[in-house]
Amino acid sequence: MSDSSLFMRHQETLKRAVQASKDRDYWTAYPEMPSPRIYGETAQKDGERAFKARLNKKFELGQGLEDKEVGAEKSPYGFDLGIRYSASNLDELIDDVEDCRMDWAKASPETRAGICLEILDRINKRSFEIAFSVMHTTGQAFMMAFQAGGPHAQDRGLEALAYAFDDMKRTAPTSLWTKPQGKRDPIVMEKKFNIVPRGIGLVVGCSTFPTWNSYPGLFANLVTGNAVIMKPHPMAILPAAITVEIARDVLGEEGFDKNIVTLLADSVDAPITKEIALRSEVKLIDFTGSSFFGNWLEENARQALVYTEKAGVNCVVIDSTDNFRGMTSNLAFTLSLYSGQMCTTPQNIFIPEGGIETDEGHKSFDEVAGGIAFAMEKLLGDDERAGHILGAIQSEATLERLEKISAGDNVIAASRKIESEIFKGAIIRTPVLLKAVDEKSYNEELFGPISFFVATKNTDASLDTVMASVINNGAISFGIYSTSDEVLDDAEDMACRAGVAVSFNLCGGVYVNQTAAFSDFHATGANPAANAALSDTAYVSNRYRIVQSRRHK
Amino acid sequence: MSDSSLFMRHQETLKRAVQASKDRDYWTAYPEMPSPRIYGETAQKDGERAFKARLNKKFELGQGLEDKEVGAEKSPYGFDLGIRYSASNLDELIDDVEDCRMDWAKASPETRAGICLEILDRINKRSFEIAFSVMHTTGQAFMMAFQAGGPHAQDRGLEALAYAFDDMKRTAPTSLWTKPQGKRDPIVMEKKFNIVPRGIGLVVGCSTFPTWNSYPGLFANLVTGNAVIMKPHPMAILPAAITVEIARDVLGEEGFDKNIVTLLADSVDAPITKEIALRSEVKLIDFTGSSFFGNWLEENARQALVYTEKAGVNCVVIDSTDNFRGMTSNLAFTLSLYSGQMCTTPQNIFIPEGGIETDEGHKSFDEVAGGIAFAMEKLLGDDERAGHILGAIQSEATLERLEKISAGDNVIAASRKIESEIFKGAIIRTPVLLKAVDEKSYNEELFGPISFFVATKNTDASLDTVMASVINNGAISFGIYSTSDEVLDDAEDMACRAGVAVSFNLCGGVYVNQTAAFSDFHATGANPAANAALSDTAYVSNRYRIVQSRRHK
Repeated sequence: MSDSSLFMRHQETLKRAVQASKDRDYWTAYPEMPSPRIYGETAQKDGERAFKARLNKKFELGQGLEDKEVGAEKSPYGFDLGIRYSASNLDELIDDVEDCRMDWAKASPETRAGICLEILDRINKRSFEIAFSVMHTTGQAFMMAFQAGGPHAQDRGLEALAYAFDDMKRTAPTSLWTKPQGKRDPIVMEKKFNIVPRGIGLVVGCSTFPTWNSYPGLFANLVTGNAVIMKPHPMAILPAAITVEIARDVLGEEGFDKNIVTLLADSVDAPITKEIALRSEVKLIDFTGSSFFGNWLEENARQALVYTEKAGVNCVVIDSTDNFRGMTSNLAFTLSLYSGQMCTTPQNIFIPEGGIETDEGHKSFDEVAGGIAFAMEKLLGDDERAGHILGAIQSEATLERLEKISAGDNVIAASRKIESEIFKGAIIRTPVLLKAVDEKSYNEELFGPISFFVATKNTDASLDTVMASVINNGAISFGIYSTSDEVLDDAEDMACRAGVAVSFNLCGGVYVNQTAAFSDFHATGANPAANAALSDTAYVSNRYRIVQSRRHK
Repeated sequence: MSDSSLFMRHQETLKRAVQASKDRDYWTAYPEMPSPRIYGETAQKDGERAFKARLNKKFELGQGLEDKEVGAEKSPYGFDLGIRYSASNLDELIDDVEDCRMDWAKASPETRAGICLEILDRINKRSFEIAFSVMHTTGQAFMMAFQAGGPHAQDRGLEALAYAFDDMKRTAPTSLWTKPQGKRDPIVMEKKFNIVPRGIGLVVGCSTFPTWNSYPGLFANLVTGNAVIMKPHPMAILPAAITVEIARDVLGEEGFDKNIVTLLADSVDAPITKEIALRSEVKLIDFTGSSFFGNWLEENARQALVYTEKAGVNCVVIDSTDNFRGMTSNLAFTLSLYSGQMCTTPQNIFIPEGGIETDEGHKSFDEVAGGIAFAMEKLLGDDERAGHILGAIQSEATLERLEKISAGDNVIAASRKIESEIFKGAIIRTPVLLKAVDEKSYNEELFGPISFFVATKNTDASLDTVMASVINNGAISFGIYSTSDEVLDDAEDMACRAGVAVSFNLCGGVYVNQTAAFSDFHATGANPAANAALSDTAYVSNRYRIVQSRRHK
């Protein structure tokens, strides 16, 4: 199939994606329901089988060293994946990519977009296989692994692709410049505006959202003509490897060198990111992970443009509500989803020390905190149901943090072990809810199912504290509950000053830790938690440059 | 006049500017001819009178310290300007700007665009006054000071404004997000997408193009809601001061605090740029000047986004021509214009050691070099005419460099003093043309009227050398002369790899050192000479962020 026919086949999707990114209304290209009617009657079984066929084998990608393997992934649900990946020699890998990347650089935006859209389409068709691979590396429950690891990640990839394509097409590829010269003949010049990519883009994945956080960088880089090296977290390689495999297949079929997209797998013991991140050929870095390492990249990888999503301390302010039950249920679910292992999960909940007004009358500070604890108890009362919401704890570090903090005497709701037969071997915990004792204890990110109730003088004081927290510690999400329009306006004003997105009075089926592609921007790029947003023009427009030529006609 | 009526008044200009920035065809908003029919019968005289009225006085802007003055501008045409400006206390200045900038941040893009367009319109009407102020700070000849300092600078300001406005308007200000829920009612959310500026933008001007290189940053910052502090070069304050005065007038009339745009004047002896560039409130820096200081800003002003245009070594490759006379005349003018004091003036001209084929038969290396020298002699033979092309030498350092390099025994055409009665007191020199002896001598920027002829084995070798030079030393312009399409294709390929714009066979009224707003990108942002281009989406899109709010409907 010629590349232009791939573009023809998928261009309607691209066109709608570009329009959706402008309108910010509801739109999705990839259905989020793992329904047999959409994905096929046997899709789930086929996906599970494909996943299982990967286990305890070498994952062959046709790249990397023959004689050196890495791979030590463990499912948080209690088994070793046993998958080995070829390690790479950095010099060889970069040489291979440099050798082939100019062909990709010279392809037209349409050719590249067509191939990227085909890659996304095939990824979508493999959503179940990817879902199981996400589930058994991150610990996400199946439904979340399917949605966030599958269609939602694909939508985020398409969104970045759409932004980049739209920006490239903003500039006419050629022009005829005709400058009047009074009575003399005009000066006429033919001009050509070449889209020139930066070089190699390195996409550094994280252990909790290996596809969702990586697809925007992958597709923004690819469509703008850059080659991509995917460097997944050593404990979540498989979802990236499947993605790379699909990309390489399509590239090969379309007559391009497969090494335009490569996998760089490493191990926890011998991490390789620092070394490759400083290579002169690496011109773009997309990173999701710790603030420590993200800041290190920003400081040191000066030869590259560095897009980071790091840690933050997310906050919720409770001022008042006309739906106490809705509020507490919503927050209980928010804090429980994937055991708080999302970069958007709220950590600190600010409540006036004198309590709040609600539709159920005045509630004291303790009653509000207790209401959320009660809603959580109800939500997670059944272990099997709880497991499907909580998923498993991804890392030892998170479990240790949870256990350590649970030992204090300020626990409002204790963390509980989930031990259901169907989750045998998995490490599953309900969140711990704590009463904040001093600022120091909650003023840094405590990743995982750990949240604090913080008593403040009043809502103004809550907002002041949150503003300082966002400016100093960063944040990706912020929620407020109030029946007063004035308070909500103040909160929006504060959010704009501090640079954090705000959700008002979420009491139903939308949660502060969730963002929808094409409508919600993920992170603002305006506070220390992230220097970029997914996605906007700034995220894509510097991944290529325009190099023009001109001549007299 | 209400702000919305300013937008109404100027929106057609903005609309056409946005379209022109996409089409890249010929378009201009501000006529480049200093014609009485366009600017008014008395415009030139009025402008000169207004300029003269500034001399030997305090320039009152209503900001800065009452009791401390700076100002030591000297016209390169031989007199002191004698203008004093209020110095500023940095803490007070930044406090004043911080105090008022949120009002501007909260104004709508349309309000801000209307005000910016009105400022540009008034600047355009004062083009003659600004031309004289540019002429007598930079040493540019009057015609160039008018065009590059006036309408062309205004076009570049409008272009950046258009990019920024278009990018802000790409995102709907609000949306209704309606997510289907099967048979249940859809989830409906109202979303608002707030444009939030970064903070204070510092625009650091240069001594040779105080308006042209500053207007893009000024207007890109302003329209996206940032406050702007203009920090002109201490020897070219006046054009910035007039610009700031106009901006403050319009802001004041429209009910905004004038301190949204301020002037920060300093002196050569006590430069202030380093100090303010590191202030946490300064979130954007636009800089034009030396590589040394530009690199320092990029390395150190980490709290800000830094857009730099620095030094480069521009090259021309001569392979062959079917218009020897046109080529030599074009290059002679290019090298002479403003005595080579443009960041786009070619420094190194590569010619095969065996000579080239031309419409006048084979020409040896020496004949090609001699042809350019001859054309220059003819162009600059008459001192009065020469002065109108050359302008005056802006700085002592440039003059010293010229004199030092002219002492070598490799001079092909010596630099000559221009001494015409009408340029009495001005330091005017014709360019020196040298034969390159070793790579070291021409492999760094030698700012001013200094150019080298470099002998190479052949054109392939010329292109290889230029590619290495662009990658290592940076370049803003690159020209090639060849009758072979294959050679031109190779040159374009090289230009794309190295990241420099290329002009083919310029033999007429377009010169390699000139770029036209809305059509030619100035710098690529892809080599060490500049990390940004004027203007493109990447130049504007990160100057603001989007902070959204959402609530259930």
